[in-house]
Amino acid sequence: MKYCFGVDIGGTTVKMGLFSTEGELYEKWEIKTHTENEGKQVLPDIAASVRAKMEEKGISAEETAGVGVGVPAPVSEGIVKNSANIGWGYKNVKKEMEELLPGIRAEIGNDANVAALGEMWLGAGKGCSNMIMVTLGTGVGGGVICQGHVIAGANGAGGEIGHICVNYSETEKCGCGKTGCLEQYASATGIARLAKLRLAKLHGKTLLEGKNLSAKSVFDAVKKDDRVAIEIAEEFGAYLGHALANMAVIVDPEMIVIGGGVSNAGPALLPFIEKPFQEKAFFANKDTKIVLATLGNDAGICGAARLII
Amino acid sequence: MKYCFGVDIGGTTVKMGLFSTEGELYEKWEIKTHTENEGKQVLPDIAASVRAKMEEKGISAEETAGVGVGVPAPVSEGIVKNSANIGWGYKNVKKEMEELLPGIRAEIGNDANVAALGEMWLGAGKGCSNMIMVTLGTGVGGGVICQGHVIAGANGAGGEIGHICVNYSETEKCGCGKTGCLEQYASATGIARLAKLRLAKLHGKTLLEGKNLSAKSVFDAVKKDDRVAIEIAEEFGAYLGHALANMAVIVDPEMIVIGGGVSNAGPALLPFIEKPFQEKAFFANKDTKIVLATLGNDAGICGAARLII
Repeated sequence: MKYCFGVDIGGTTVKMGLFSTEGELYEKWEIKTHTENEGKQVLPDIAASVRAKMEEKGISAEETAGVGVGVPAPVSEGIVKNSANIGWGYKNVKKEMEELLPGIRAEIGNDANVAALGEMWLGAGKGCSNMIMVTLGTGVGGGVICQGHVIAGANGAGGEIGHICVNYSETEKCGCGKTGCLEQYASATGIARLAKLRLAKLHGKTLLEGKNLSAKSVFDAVKKDDRVAIEIAEEFGAYLGHALANMAVIVDPEMIVIGGGVSNAGPALLPFIEKPFQEKAFFANKDTKIVLATLGNDAGICGAARLII
Repeated sequence: MKYCFGVDIGGTTVKMGLFSTEGELYEKWEIKTHTENEGKQVLPDIAASVRAKMEEKGISAEETAGVGVGVPAPVSEGIVKNSANIGWGYKNVKKEMEELLPGIRAEIGNDANVAALGEMWLGAGKGCSNMIMVTLGTGVGGGVICQGHVIAGANGAGGEIGHICVNYSETEKCGCGKTGCLEQYASATGIARLAKLRLAKLHGKTLLEGKNLSAKSVFDAVKKDDRVAIEIAEEFGAYLGHALANMAVIVDPEMIVIGGGVSNAGPALLPFIEKPFQEKAFFANKDTKIVLATLGNDAGICGAARLII
């Protein structure tokens, strides 16, 4: 047994965890992300925090298998080309991290891919080596794991699930510049958009109110059997379920894990995704389980630590 | 350097090749596929042919790294559950093959996945470790390679590219029982179908004739600037190019290789696929190259041999 650190860099905080290589989480904590000056301080701050924790616990470099870091950007061979959220341009994160922590190995991954790895290691996907994770948050992110490894892709842009085109007649643009991306229908923002569009042409009763529309308000109303909210959830579910069926035919996963803020709606969410998935699933993929993520915000640190193993 | 054998089992013939582990193809030959009696003879016939070649060339079991076999069925850990084309039900192909050839390792893969591996090893994808191969034949098959490994999936059904749904309003059924599968528009059969549908409602001149419609006749007419044929090719290309853009966003390949009978149309085929691909490609995937396969019918034996390495 050795120790390892999992680090999840976000735009406002850096989440950190101390683990055993066997998957025990001993302690977690956060530090601020100093994005000023092109994020120059981010890695030195992380290194200082790792060193402080090692000292506090009396852990030597020899007892440390490494530090895994999740970054909100495509990552290829430890290198980030651009991460707007933290202020970074081109940065060899692996190299800099290893220079800051002599004698300790660093491994770097994209945050959404890393979260998928976390769920596989210690969460909903435990024991599973072929898995898709979809994170339904402000945007739609994800990670695809095949035979235990994340598909990082040629440019570190593997698993960009949110930008699968699911509607070729969409006219409104996605943040990425394309139209009809899954993110426009299945993110928290996308669900609120679907709700707004439906309310605008509605002639009936609903618990939903035009000014407070959110993914949460939609699924709260679904749980009270609100017909309009159910229709919105069905629309969301059709886009997501069909997209997942198309992904499954490519990577043939054992399991699809749904995480992110939208998944806080709980088990009520799943039938809306499962029904359209089954409608469009290839026969070989019919047994793919669709489940909720279980690690919440810890998926990132868990998966980052898993990069080391 | 060692020797290895690549075996590609088809419904009528078994293609076989003798390779060096460095990728030199010394010799290739074919034997008949005896599908009668539930294909009982297929593996013994292959083993006999391998042994005969080893004797002929004076190759010992110690000099042989192994025998790779491509099978027209999903394969998981060397096991085939059902292969209608060869008459097999459940069969542990790896185990039986190794029993038939004592001291020689066998590795088994799905034929379309194996063809992708062949193009990566010795064909259009040489030097590339993230690649999608699409085979446009009677059906549409394919293989997805990430970090040098085929994505076989949890049930051996990875890379079933032909059954991505690309048209949610299709009413005609695909062979798989679903509707709107890529195979219905981008296989040789699918292109002929598109041509037939278009000719049925046509009021204009074309070189195409209702009774001899095929993917070949369509692309022959395209090369003669036939307007109707060009429209059919554009329709085919839009379905395929958009599907490839959606696949690229998941696996982020360096290269997409187009093979199978339809690819015999040559370089004239590519712009019809590239334009819609670029229209719908995520920014990180814009540089993905789309190229023609170069190994033709040898892709199967090459990839099967590559399974050993």
